Amino acid sequence: MKKILVLFLLALQLSFGQSIHPTLLMTKKAVAEIKKDFDKYPLFNESFAKAKKAIDETLTKPMDVPFPKDAGGGYTHEKHKQNYNEMYIAGIMYQVTGDIKYALFIRDMLNQYAQMYPKLGKHPQGKIEMTGKLFWQTLNETVWLIHTIQAYDCIYDWLKPEERKLYKDNIFVPMCDYFLTECEEEFDRIHNHGTWMVTAVGMTGLVLDKKDFIEKSLHGSKLDDEGGFIPQLDKLFSPDGYYTEGGYYARYALWPFFIYAESLENNRPDLNIFKHRDSILKKAFYSALQMTYTNGAFMPINDALKEKTWLSQELVLASNVVFERYGHDLELLNLVKEQNQVSLTSAGLETAAALKEAKTIPPFSWKSISFVDGADGKQGGIGILRWGSKEDMETLLFKYSSHGLSHGHFDKLHFLFYDQGEEIIQDYGAARFLNVVQKFGGRYLPENDSYALHTVAHNTLVVDERSNFDFNRNKSENNPPSEYFYNADDPNFQFMSAKDFNSYPGVEMHRTMALVNDEKLDRPIVLDIFRIVSKDEHQYDLPFYYMGHLVDANFDYKAYVNEKTTMGNKNGYQHLWKDAEGKSNSTAIITWLNKHRFYSIITNADPSMNIYFTQIGANDPKFNLRNDQGIMLRKKAKDFVFTSIIQPHGEFDPTLEFTKNSYPDFENIKVLFNDSNFTAIDIEGKNGIKWIVLISNSDNKTDSKHTLKIGDKDFSWTGPITIIK
Amino acid sequence: MKKILVLFLLALQLSFGQSIHPTLLMTKKAVAEIKKDFDKYPLFNESFAKAKKAIDETLTKPMDVPFPKDAGGGYTHEKHKQNYNEMYIAGIMYQVTGDIKYALFIRDMLNQYAQMYPKLGKHPQGKIEMTGKLFWQTLNETVWLIHTIQAYDCIYDWLKPEERKLYKDNIFVPMCDYFLTECEEEFDRIHNHGTWMVTAVGMTGLVLDKKDFIEKSLHGSKLDDEGGFIPQLDKLFSPDGYYTEGGYYARYALWPFFIYAESLENNRPDLNIFKHRDSILKKAFYSALQMTYTNGAFMPINDALKEKTWLSQELVLASNVVFERYGHDLELLNLVKEQNQVSLTSAGLETAAALKEAKTIPPFSWKSISFVDGADGKQGGIGILRWGSKEDMETLLFKYSSHGLSHGHFDKLHFLFYDQGEEIIQDYGAARFLNVVQKFGGRYLPENDSYALHTVAHNTLVVDERSNFDFNRNKSENNPPSEYFYNADDPNFQFMSAKDFNSYPGVEMHRTMALVNDEKLDRPIVLDIFRIVSKDEHQYDLPFYYMGHLVDANFDYKAYVNEKTTMGNKNGYQHLWKDAEGKSNSTAIITWLNKHRFYSIITNADPSMNIYFTQIGANDPKFNLRNDQGIMLRKKAKDFVFTSIIQPHGEFDPTLEFTKNSYPDFENIKVLFNDSNFTAIDIEGKNGIKWIVLISNSDNKTDSKHTLKIGDKDFSWTGPITIIK
Repeated sequence: MKKILVLFLLALQLSFGQSIHPTLLMTKKAVAEIKKDFDKYPLFNESFAKAKKAIDETLTKPMDVPFPKDAGGGYTHEKHKQNYNEMYIAGIMYQVTGDIKYALFIRDMLNQYAQMYPKLGKHPQGKIEMTGKLFWQTLNETVWLIHTIQAYDCIYDWLKPEERKLYKDNIFVPMCDYFLTECEEEFDRIHNHGTWMVTAVGMTGLVLDKKDFIEKSLHGSKLDDEGGFIPQLDKLFSPDGYYTEGGYYARYALWPFFIYAESLENNRPDLNIFKHRDSILKKAFYSALQMTYTNGAFMPINDALKEKTWLSQELVLASNVVFERYGHDLELLNLVKEQNQVSLTSAGLETAAALKEAKTIPPFSWKSISFVDGADGKQGGIGILRWGSKEDMETLLFKYSSHGLSHGHFDKLHFLFYDQGEEIIQDYGAARFLNVVQKFGGRYLPENDSYALHTVAHNTLVVDERSNFDFNRNKSENNPPSEYFYNADDPNFQFMSAKDFNSYPGVEMHRTMALVNDEKLDRPIVLDIFRIVSKDEHQYDLPFYYMGHLVDANFDYKAYVNEKTTMGNKNGYQHLWKDAEGKSNSTAIITWLNKHRFYSIITNADPSMNIYFTQIGANDPKFNLRNDQGIMLRKKAKDFVFTSIIQPHGEFDPTLEFTKNSYPDFENIKVLFNDSNFTAIDIEGKNGIKWIVLISNSDNKTDSKHTLKIGDKDFSWTGPITIIK
Repeated sequence: MKKILVLFLLALQLSFGQSIHPTLLMTKKAVAEIKKDFDKYPLFNESFAKAKKAIDETLTKPMDVPFPKDAGGGYTHEKHKQNYNEMYIAGIMYQVTGDIKYALFIRDMLNQYAQMYPKLGKHPQGKIEMTGKLFWQTLNETVWLIHTIQAYDCIYDWLKPEERKLYKDNIFVPMCDYFLTECEEEFDRIHNHGTWMVTAVGMTGLVLDKKDFIEKSLHGSKLDDEGGFIPQLDKLFSPDGYYTEGGYYARYALWPFFIYAESLENNRPDLNIFKHRDSILKKAFYSALQMTYTNGAFMPINDALKEKTWLSQELVLASNVVFERYGHDLELLNLVKEQNQVSLTSAGLETAAALKEAKTIPPFSWKSISFVDGADGKQGGIGILRWGSKEDMETLLFKYSSHGLSHGHFDKLHFLFYDQGEEIIQDYGAARFLNVVQKFGGRYLPENDSYALHTVAHNTLVVDERSNFDFNRNKSENNPPSEYFYNADDPNFQFMSAKDFNSYPGVEMHRTMALVNDEKLDRPIVLDIFRIVSKDEHQYDLPFYYMGHLVDANFDYKAYVNEKTTMGNKNGYQHLWKDAEGKSNSTAIITWLNKHRFYSIITNADPSMNIYFTQIGANDPKFNLRNDQGIMLRKKAKDFVFTSIIQPHGEFDPTLEFTKNSYPDFENIKVLFNDSNFTAIDIEGKNGIKWIVLISNSDNKTDSKHTLKIGDKDFSWTGPITIIK
């Protein structure tokens, strides 16, 4: 009934010939609210004033719409980005202040684009990514259009009909047509580039009242729901909101989702877009936030730049819209406060008002949480275990998700560990310097393919020095690992486990990770049990890329002090310097220092295991890689269980000049028992630590009862894993 | 007259048999004030409560006075440190609260020390430094005594006479005798270790009323003023307060100076110690503060740990006493606030009161400033140029001081550069992990001698791959460089210059450094003109240890991507990996990225100059060194002028996803003219930058007029340096 009424009112409005512009993020209603209240709420007022100051300055300077020439970071690239941002802000300023100078600015700039755009061929720097005309990749071009169409919408009523026609005919329609024809594959792609493109075409459709653009934007270029916004909402996120490319890309992908969702809500309330698929946009947003560490940085799985945090511009609108549309979650105000700006929309106004009125802001809840991956929720997932408060939180991320599209890495059963606000066991992230011209125009560097994507760049198993699926992305996409168990109910014993039988033919991988706390310890340890089953012998390499300064190793090693060579010549090994190698007679212990705490890896070595100390950066003539260090455990075997503890311990205080517990508490780890049904691990340490960890390898039901006899001892327990102390 | 009156009153007090205890930092008057006001001023109240909470907890635990066994970081070492701190705090608590439990704690612990100390021989871990009995080095032992004698002083009146006798006979007197006989050389040494020792003996003398201890502490073991506190005040600091070991050691050395000065002021007001040598203690304190960067970290010349800031425990008492004794400088309250604690003394009380009452605290003034070195002010010095506010300050430190005693490095005419709150061109500091047992017991590591001390570890000239003075410390101490000019009057053109004719026989070094600002630039550049004069040909190496990620070099180079070797095999070169080498036809430009800004070195290369990219860490089997990178310019020549600009430029913003000015503004640098009288440099860059820098090499007077004809151009200027734009 309500829906019908809305449609009726819309029809009524149109039939009276009353203009609907602006009609995207800015609407007549939003403009009225902003005019009334823009100076009432400090954060909105500041955001508005800052934007106004910047655009007012711009208006005093000469305009430039240069002929496209440069890639990311270069002048013409950055200038066109600046131009769309300035038009966008000028549009808002025109609506709110009514000052005609802003409209003139947009018109003058659109005139220049209208002159130039029809003359443009494909961009000269177009390379790997889909080539645009204004920009080297269509991605930037869609962002240009999304901003520019909003500016145009804001001055639509003020423009003369012939001007409207000029921009429509010379810019907007041809650009959309270019996207729909030349870039049809990209348009229909279930991928963040696709989202940007359908958003650009759809918003243009809303403003130009071109129904075909709108429908194609929603249902794909062939209207068959193989592409388009609705299928993207249905396919890009898992049922619990996990975005298949990971949190870092969710950040970026969510931007067009929220821009277009907000625009659709204002024009097509019949779609009820914010409720679509059980409020999938809300789930997607929170899932992205949970993929950050306590410093707000996205945990950099897949191609990710470590500098990116939840303060990113892209999340400003999203945080405001989620606050507005999904019930005023006060925890979000932490993020809004840190972002220190709001979007110049009604959602931004509402959020700024809430921030002003909030008496106390509850802390943001980073949780132990797991996500399934894939539209069907059956493409593996991500497990995150956390312990402690924001000030000093341990966070363990375990990746058993699907490949993650074109930005995915070959890193099945990889993990990351954080503590003290720092990376402790790192993911390399991406080899890229965003927008730095000298670094391959700011694009992904060759070493991203030759190192960062490879399995050996991650904290997971490499078999026979080959990457997962022999670096075949399709195979990787089609064969995700599977979660075996995940349980974080007991903060002192949280555990997760996953299996992968496909990455290496004939080799079954089963990794179990846990955060284990105990009163004898300073804080929880990471338990890492990596079980491998194979009929044939292979070389198993397990690297750990630790962050910090090496303090000690409890075994003899040979250091290559005068001359060094590489760990190999392909699959990423060519980028690793071999700094040292050694063997340990029994449990190996390696300790490093990071800030104010020591960390040790304690692992079940034996004389047949080689242990390497490595440094990233070989075969890197342009110094594109960071020179971070790692250790690598190497074992030739059929079946094997790499069993390690990563212990944060002690304290290093150079200000008060004291140090304590620079040695770890654990001394011996060994595998007591291992077969297809059970694995049992024996752990010994100082102060009488004597633990037995028992895992059921074939039955993951929480209520199954197990018994196991090892030597003359009988063990019995319930569930897939237990620890006996 | 006043002095006589004081002595009279003191005599009167003693003659009436009234106890003088406590009489060191704690006095009867201080105790009365603290009792009255301790909860009135938040920072004192918190400091007091925190100390009380800690000692109250200690009192519930078993006491341990272990037989000495371990070096720094080990259990017995840390335990004895903990013990003296606890006794010290217990003493204060006894005086303020009157609670006998604190006195009992001190007595019980002293009883254990009184039993043990007479049995001790030299410490088993004693090595390089003077060996103690409780500790591996006497340095820790003197700190133990300084704290313990204060605790004893606090419970003196409460103790039974036989207890006093026991501690005096078994601990205090024999320990002082050990210092005065076995460690006589250390006692009389004009060095911070000497200061600690005379302070310990002197304070013990004040409490035990042993005049010989007091006199020897003031005038040396032979009372000849070759050692002792007064000669130390006269010789360890230059006339303007520069401490010859540098700011990092001033921080440490000032602690006993202020403890003993405060104790002397309370007992020997006739010495007027705070006014001694034109208030040298005040000058020394401020000079140390000026040796910090805006993050409070001491600029790490000589053996220095980079973690050390002005928040160090050692400066808490000093900042309070300087505030108390030298006219309530409100700027110091910045430091006090950051330290977030005050000393539990009358100075601490007074400072906390001022902090509570201060309405506004003026920002701390980091200044462009120069210091002379040496007691006579004629042993070279340090020049510091600064530009900008605390939030984003450029700081250039130029070192032309004397050697700096046993912690000095062979780094004549070395410099450090800071920007953005970061090290941009670094000093390695010291190869040491303080108190980390696994790292050589927390002592200086072998690589400190074999790398960090050597000339090649610094941003200065190495001739023929040998260190200054062929690594002979005595020669280095006796032949300081000399300041040639220093002037920071114009913030947009600040300059300094020094000469060294002794470090390398037959080679004259003359380095001029400036901060030059210009409206065409984002911010000031560093100008570095290193002029070398020699009759014979030598190999000149000039390294720059830049911090950040290499972005680009404008010349061809060969990178050693599969195998690397070292830069040499001695004098520190054995610790440098050779990553790449190249040649530039003309001006060489190397750019790197640090945080949000780009930095470039633009230098006058030519095809006969080799340019190396290096990484620290070769011949380091225990991974004791950081793997930091550097570039090295190598030129074979007789006379040569290395002429470089270090330019901070542009912006890298991954959050807003833009980059600007990633290329520097400077393109060409060449030496136009160079002889014994003048050097002229030609500098060209974008936007019409065309500068000529003119230096007078033999006349540094500010009012001298110079003329120079180069080609057909006549230049005339006044003073030792000018820049023509």
